[in-house]
Amino acid sequence: MTTTHPRGFRAAGVAAGLKSTGAKDVALVVNDGPRHDSASVFTANRCKANPVLWSEQVVQDGVVRAVVLNSGGANCYTGPDGFQTTHAVAERVADHVGIGAGDVVVCSTGLIGLANDRNQVLAGVDEAHAALDPDGGPDAAEAIMTTDSVSKQVVVDGAGWSVGGMAKGAGMLAPQLATMLVVLTTDAVVDAPDLDRALRAATRVSFDRLDSDGCMSTNDTVTVMASGASGITPSLDDLTDALTRACTDLAMQLLADAEGADHEIAITTLGAASEDDAVAVGRSVARSNLFKAAVFGNDPNWGRVLASIGTTDAVFDPADLDVAINGVWVCRESTPAADPAGVDLTGREVTVTIDLKSGDARATVWTNDLTHAYVHENSAYSS
Amino acid sequence: MTTTHPRGFRAAGVAAGLKSTGAKDVALVVNDGPRHDSASVFTANRCKANPVLWSEQVVQDGVVRAVVLNSGGANCYTGPDGFQTTHAVAERVADHVGIGAGDVVVCSTGLIGLANDRNQVLAGVDEAHAALDPDGGPDAAEAIMTTDSVSKQVVVDGAGWSVGGMAKGAGMLAPQLATMLVVLTTDAVVDAPDLDRALRAATRVSFDRLDSDGCMSTNDTVTVMASGASGITPSLDDLTDALTRACTDLAMQLLADAEGADHEIAITTLGAASEDDAVAVGRSVARSNLFKAAVFGNDPNWGRVLASIGTTDAVFDPADLDVAINGVWVCRESTPAADPAGVDLTGREVTVTIDLKSGDARATVWTNDLTHAYVHENSAYSS
Repeated sequence: MTTTHPRGFRAAGVAAGLKSTGAKDVALVVNDGPRHDSASVFTANRCKANPVLWSEQVVQDGVVRAVVLNSGGANCYTGPDGFQTTHAVAERVADHVGIGAGDVVVCSTGLIGLANDRNQVLAGVDEAHAALDPDGGPDAAEAIMTTDSVSKQVVVDGAGWSVGGMAKGAGMLAPQLATMLVVLTTDAVVDAPDLDRALRAATRVSFDRLDSDGCMSTNDTVTVMASGASGITPSLDDLTDALTRACTDLAMQLLADAEGADHEIAITTLGAASEDDAVAVGRSVARSNLFKAAVFGNDPNWGRVLASIGTTDAVFDPADLDVAINGVWVCRESTPAADPAGVDLTGREVTVTIDLKSGDARATVWTNDLTHAYVHENSAYSS
Repeated sequence: MTTTHPRGFRAAGVAAGLKSTGAKDVALVVNDGPRHDSASVFTANRCKANPVLWSEQVVQDGVVRAVVLNSGGANCYTGPDGFQTTHAVAERVADHVGIGAGDVVVCSTGLIGLANDRNQVLAGVDEAHAALDPDGGPDAAEAIMTTDSVSKQVVVDGAGWSVGGMAKGAGMLAPQLATMLVVLTTDAVVDAPDLDRALRAATRVSFDRLDSDGCMSTNDTVTVMASGASGITPSLDDLTDALTRACTDLAMQLLADAEGADHEIAITTLGAASEDDAVAVGRSVARSNLFKAAVFGNDPNWGRVLASIGTTDAVFDPADLDVAINGVWVCRESTPAADPAGVDLTGREVTVTIDLKSGDARATVWTNDLTHAYVHENSAYSS
């Protein structure tokens, strides 16, 4: 039941007609308390969508009592009028729930540069509020889907408390569709500063290391609300662990559902002088169109891995790099080693292991391959 | 006659059997003087090919008397044995010409991780030396082609002196093929420090702003040799201007011949607070797979342009950006303006104009679109 698995939450997902298909397109998740602690992270893109501009202000005081989300329109680059739509949506939710608009996070996803009809969205909010249900999590998860082929949901149980969550998207994989929206809930008792620490630790090793196509969205939002309804206060470590498991699980669901991808690629960098170095190296490989196209072609092209590593500032000896693909060490000391013909890339899951031989730090970055379908889905549509 | 257009140079291009097709694959350009000033720039990739490691040392003293180039093998990530091949090639050229090996730049292009047969390359050097001719420039230009569909050559005439040049490649556009090799010649009288200033000024606004797929090669080399055979000493401004025109002309030839591309895209950023800002913004758009795929689909997707701008540190107001595509201002003040339907993207040449409204600086960055053919050519081959 995802976001409604922890106690203290109700949710709904309804069809307001924003999607031409008639599918669900407005979701609402309400925290009934008794506590209303929250934490959020947003896209680092400086050209942000209106809902992000709004929500960044909302979350400042650590209190969020509801998250309202719509698919079918990103409300991005729509100017002051679009911002007023976001504001009106928050006000409408606040009126229904009996809270202040300044406690309502708004998220939107869909076409960029296109303003939704305000009354249509507001009618969807009315309907969603009327449909709020303690078992409404799955409907909400369905309503935020855009080109997702399945809804993404997760539950992590603690000792008498739990974490639930839903997500949509992956990278900027689909035409003009804004990326990743994630709502997490917990009935643990936790104040906003600790929740913020736990969320940032969790996203740092999960969503932040998911780099599907290198394009940074305008709408990315991750919000966690804590109701305290379990009456249990877990340790910060336990909370961080649960949120990390939830975020990692959702990230892997996003990766596996990336549109147009044939392979999920996990790039693990070992022997790094620092975790930052390991992430930088992994990210550079994850952003190499040449390497990603090679994986699509089932070609274990380690030369393109080395060429990508060489673009980073990480600590390493260019003449002493080892690279394994699917466990086969095809490159040792920056020269050919095991026969690449022994690497089987026909499965969806691909591992790349890089040994920098410069320390003890490590990190994994995930990406997809670059395929004909990626090009097709991001080019073949009417504008 | 390209590299042999200026006086004082001989060149040759021969078939040594490195290419399975039997096409020319070894080129030699010799500076017969009376002067032997030179300047070079190399790839910034830290994982460099053996010829680059060698040539970086050769050029330190500003004297280069010959450049030898082979296609059919990049000699990259081939270890100490590959380095010895490079060394042996330089020694063989030096023996033939009667100079020191330390005055011979070596360039290689072709498959990464594959060592050429040393004796085969050396036999090619022998043959190339025997074929040296004051009209040999076009043969040399042909011998450095890999997946290039045409050879790239240029001549710029000054007042009694001239610049000639040849190039191969574009970005990292072809399977496992190392990028861009450029040899420029001039019969102007110019010392190495001034030649270095002029070359760096020329490459900074030409090759450095050509970003076909964001992948940085392991073998990039640009070398200019000055024979002084004209007896004329142009002003540094005139020399810089001629080299810039030669480099820009070759860069546009590379862009137009990029494998798998359907469009050449020129991204001009105006109103920037600094030239660095303008370049950073242009480069971020040039590296957006989403935007490049949209251009392939003839879609004037300005939202993806704004999303790319937002990832940079440049000075601008996110709510006040203007974007034109092929001269149509589809975005004003970060909101929809002219109807995108009025943008015709059916031709090969596409212009994107971005106004940051934050200063007087400007710059143009060039790239290609992301196409099915790009994915195909970089994935569909046996490894």
